[in-house]
Amino acid sequence: MTEFRSIEAATGQPHGPSFAVHGPDDVAAACAAASAAFDVYRTTDRETRAAFLERIADEIVAIGDELIEAAMRESGLPRPRLEGERGRTAGQLRLFAGVVRKGAWQQLRIDPALPERQPLPRPDIRLRMIPLGPVAVFGASNFPLAFSTAGGDTASALAAGCPVVVKGHPAHPQTGALVADAIARAVAASGLPQGVFGHLVGPSNELGAALVQDPRIAAVGFTGSRAGGLALSRLAQAREVPIPVYAEMSSINPVVLLPEALASRGAALGTAFVGSLTMGAGQFCTNPGLVLAIEGAGLDEFIANAVAALEAAAPQTMLTTGICKAYAEGVTALEGNGKIETLAKGLPAAGTQGAAALFRTTAGAFLADKAMGHEVFGAASLVVVCKDEEEVLSVLKGLEGQLTATLHLDAADEALAGRLLPTLETKAGRILANGWPTGVEVCHAMVHGGPFPATSDARTTSVGSLAIDRFLRPVSYQNLATGLLPAELRDDALGDGAPRLVDGVLTV
Amino acid sequence: MTEFRSIEAATGQPHGPSFAVHGPDDVAAACAAASAAFDVYRTTDRETRAAFLERIADEIVAIGDELIEAAMRESGLPRPRLEGERGRTAGQLRLFAGVVRKGAWQQLRIDPALPERQPLPRPDIRLRMIPLGPVAVFGASNFPLAFSTAGGDTASALAAGCPVVVKGHPAHPQTGALVADAIARAVAASGLPQGVFGHLVGPSNELGAALVQDPRIAAVGFTGSRAGGLALSRLAQAREVPIPVYAEMSSINPVVLLPEALASRGAALGTAFVGSLTMGAGQFCTNPGLVLAIEGAGLDEFIANAVAALEAAAPQTMLTTGICKAYAEGVTALEGNGKIETLAKGLPAAGTQGAAALFRTTAGAFLADKAMGHEVFGAASLVVVCKDEEEVLSVLKGLEGQLTATLHLDAADEALAGRLLPTLETKAGRILANGWPTGVEVCHAMVHGGPFPATSDARTTSVGSLAIDRFLRPVSYQNLATGLLPAELRDDALGDGAPRLVDGVLTV
Repeated sequence: MTEFRSIEAATGQPHGPSFAVHGPDDVAAACAAASAAFDVYRTTDRETRAAFLERIADEIVAIGDELIEAAMRESGLPRPRLEGERGRTAGQLRLFAGVVRKGAWQQLRIDPALPERQPLPRPDIRLRMIPLGPVAVFGASNFPLAFSTAGGDTASALAAGCPVVVKGHPAHPQTGALVADAIARAVAASGLPQGVFGHLVGPSNELGAALVQDPRIAAVGFTGSRAGGLALSRLAQAREVPIPVYAEMSSINPVVLLPEALASRGAALGTAFVGSLTMGAGQFCTNPGLVLAIEGAGLDEFIANAVAALEAAAPQTMLTTGICKAYAEGVTALEGNGKIETLAKGLPAAGTQGAAALFRTTAGAFLADKAMGHEVFGAASLVVVCKDEEEVLSVLKGLEGQLTATLHLDAADEALAGRLLPTLETKAGRILANGWPTGVEVCHAMVHGGPFPATSDARTTSVGSLAIDRFLRPVSYQNLATGLLPAELRDDALGDGAPRLVDGVLTV
Repeated sequence: MTEFRSIEAATGQPHGPSFAVHGPDDVAAACAAASAAFDVYRTTDRETRAAFLERIADEIVAIGDELIEAAMRESGLPRPRLEGERGRTAGQLRLFAGVVRKGAWQQLRIDPALPERQPLPRPDIRLRMIPLGPVAVFGASNFPLAFSTAGGDTASALAAGCPVVVKGHPAHPQTGALVADAIARAVAASGLPQGVFGHLVGPSNELGAALVQDPRIAAVGFTGSRAGGLALSRLAQAREVPIPVYAEMSSINPVVLLPEALASRGAALGTAFVGSLTMGAGQFCTNPGLVLAIEGAGLDEFIANAVAALEAAAPQTMLTTGICKAYAEGVTALEGNGKIETLAKGLPAAGTQGAAALFRTTAGAFLADKAMGHEVFGAASLVVVCKDEEEVLSVLKGLEGQLTATLHLDAADEALAGRLLPTLETKAGRILANGWPTGVEVCHAMVHGGPFPATSDARTTSVGSLAIDRFLRPVSYQNLATGLLPAELRDDALGDGAPRLVDGVLTV
């Protein structure tokens, strides 16, 4: 295949012009350019790099409605959602610009020489973080703007000083091309080497595999399926020089309804839950796919209202025909499971739409069948009814790693919540109270990550400013003359606004 | 086998009592105890944990001369070196105690709620680092105290709040048992659960494999051979839940003699170089195994003095018969390579001793034969003579990842050094000027790490206070009531001395 076309999500039919399919030569050229640009880009000063990130944001916003319309057509997502997503995309680029300017990410440390120390003098030792090298980014289908071509991974890698080669998601090539062109304009306007950003497109997995295997690639950011993330991780580990893979893969995001909250507001929780479940056709990494509740007051009301809301839920166009098919299969498997009761289905779906679905089972059945804990990507959720607190804890302890865990609680539930928290902390990257996991704030304290298989590396986050750390490594400099030290580690750089640990004491 | 005995390094003969060989049941019991202790240990307050680390240091020092004598017998290393190593072992435990008290490792972040924000309010989000879980530590043979049972990996993991299960190095079981008992006394004296520290011994690789495969183990610290580190990494990746492995493996630590320095003090550099090369029988991860110099003034003097010093070097007992044999084989391979000239051998070795050896080749030959770049663990080094600056750069660019890279330079060499630095930064974790890589300062700015295969994970260090980060992961808490928040994230904890990023602003 040498060309491929964009598919309109609502119809499943090709639309618009063809795109050239990139092959091994294009991968090699993009990686060579990224590698050649690395030393120039990583030594840009903080202001230059920050202004570049802001310029990307400006260029994306300046595309205007053409971008929103392309994303609507390719993803099936509605206009307000995509306008919000564009704002988020620009916002996270600007957030990282601010982070780059402040300079804490450099983690500067200075241990001055102690020439009189006994029995041996201490040399002068200084440390900074440097970027890993060119980063391969695999965009997600479910956030065609905020987690794709100029999404979170691209923003954090560029902020760290790494050139980026994006493997564009084949579900939105037009959207991706518009954004890639905007980034290229920002690169040129900032006077940076063209290799700071590369963009490869094509429908095959081989393209992505070749990118991860290129020896010039130093790290990988990925958001997508468990199978895809694991495949890339295996390729990265099998390289002559293994590299880190940050894959955000799979999560069912347990929501625990604690007894007092359930008794006092079960009905309202049922309605709100379906609002979170069906948003964006349920196509969020943080979609609430599992609800745990103890038998007792309020549970019937929760279920009754959830059923009523879900049965009135309109079907929604899904991102791709493949996702639509996988969702339908997942729902069929749940329906066909003798230990699972179908509580409700949304209004009937046609074509590339998905209909919401709600199921119920018991803690005993859930614990006996690992498949019930697998993600069904879309607006399906399973209510697990537990006999008592112990069963709730058993179900939580048996879960795989998660992006989020949510508690709905009243003040009188705090003792039980306190019992559950240590387990939730070891299972999830983010713990919420009295909210819904969909909606991931881009800020400094956000963790969008978590233990395997939520991600391939729980030591990090893919949303929020902490994500810059993923693409850095420490280097120390011993007894280097001032003229050879990186500028930010010289004595005369003190006071440049970046925090430093000087002889163990943090100075700002 | 159910028992094994300590081997005296100097004679290669068994010595002292037998040790029970641990098997799968012991691995499971140690991991179960570590897992059971995790929640209690990780929630200790900073002062309790710091005092525990200091108590370990005190208990190790209190063992007295029995420990030094056991380590001398088992490692063949001399008394002053081991007394210094004991000081370093205690010192790094005390360094981490200070780090724990200061609290920066928690990386606290608070983004307060913005209830009036448009179009959506921002929830209250707070972040802290929590420990990964029980850590398996594989001690090194070449630092029977500072990188073994209570060595750097154990200290940093315990500081992070992780219980530790040590797989004791079979080359020093008596030393290891004395230290393990000291840690156990500190655990008991601190009122901590016994599972905070476990100790497994035995001569087989299966023991370590079972430990890495135990599902309760959350991370691995290892210092040793490339083959060993790669084997553990593969096991860790193949688990149902993969875990991070921090393996410090292989490095030849290039030393570059720049022309002006060579011309002005080639002779003195030659003598000093052999001092670094032969220290501790060359059994350092940072041993200078590769010297690069451009043909020209001073090179003959460098070589002449290095040869004279090396030919006068006494043979030294090596750590184990296996290391002694591997070293002899490595030297024989270099001697048998037609492109390598043997410059000098140390005084003849007998039994378990190793004799130093110095070789010379050309940059062209080195670039054509990858095997010349492999580590020979011991006091052997290869001088690579380059025609010009370009050849120096080519050799450096062709090297695998390194723990260190060293420049010897005079002021007039700075321009050339500046040309080499970007390459050195991408190849090594620590860059030194006018010193020798042996001797790794335990401080805040130290990086003892580096790109593969120096380590399996260049994003970190195994020496110095930054090492605590290896065993932590971020968790964020959204809208949790004060009573449920971890104490350090509550509003009333401000002012406890730990730095916090509040709405993006660092406050100390």
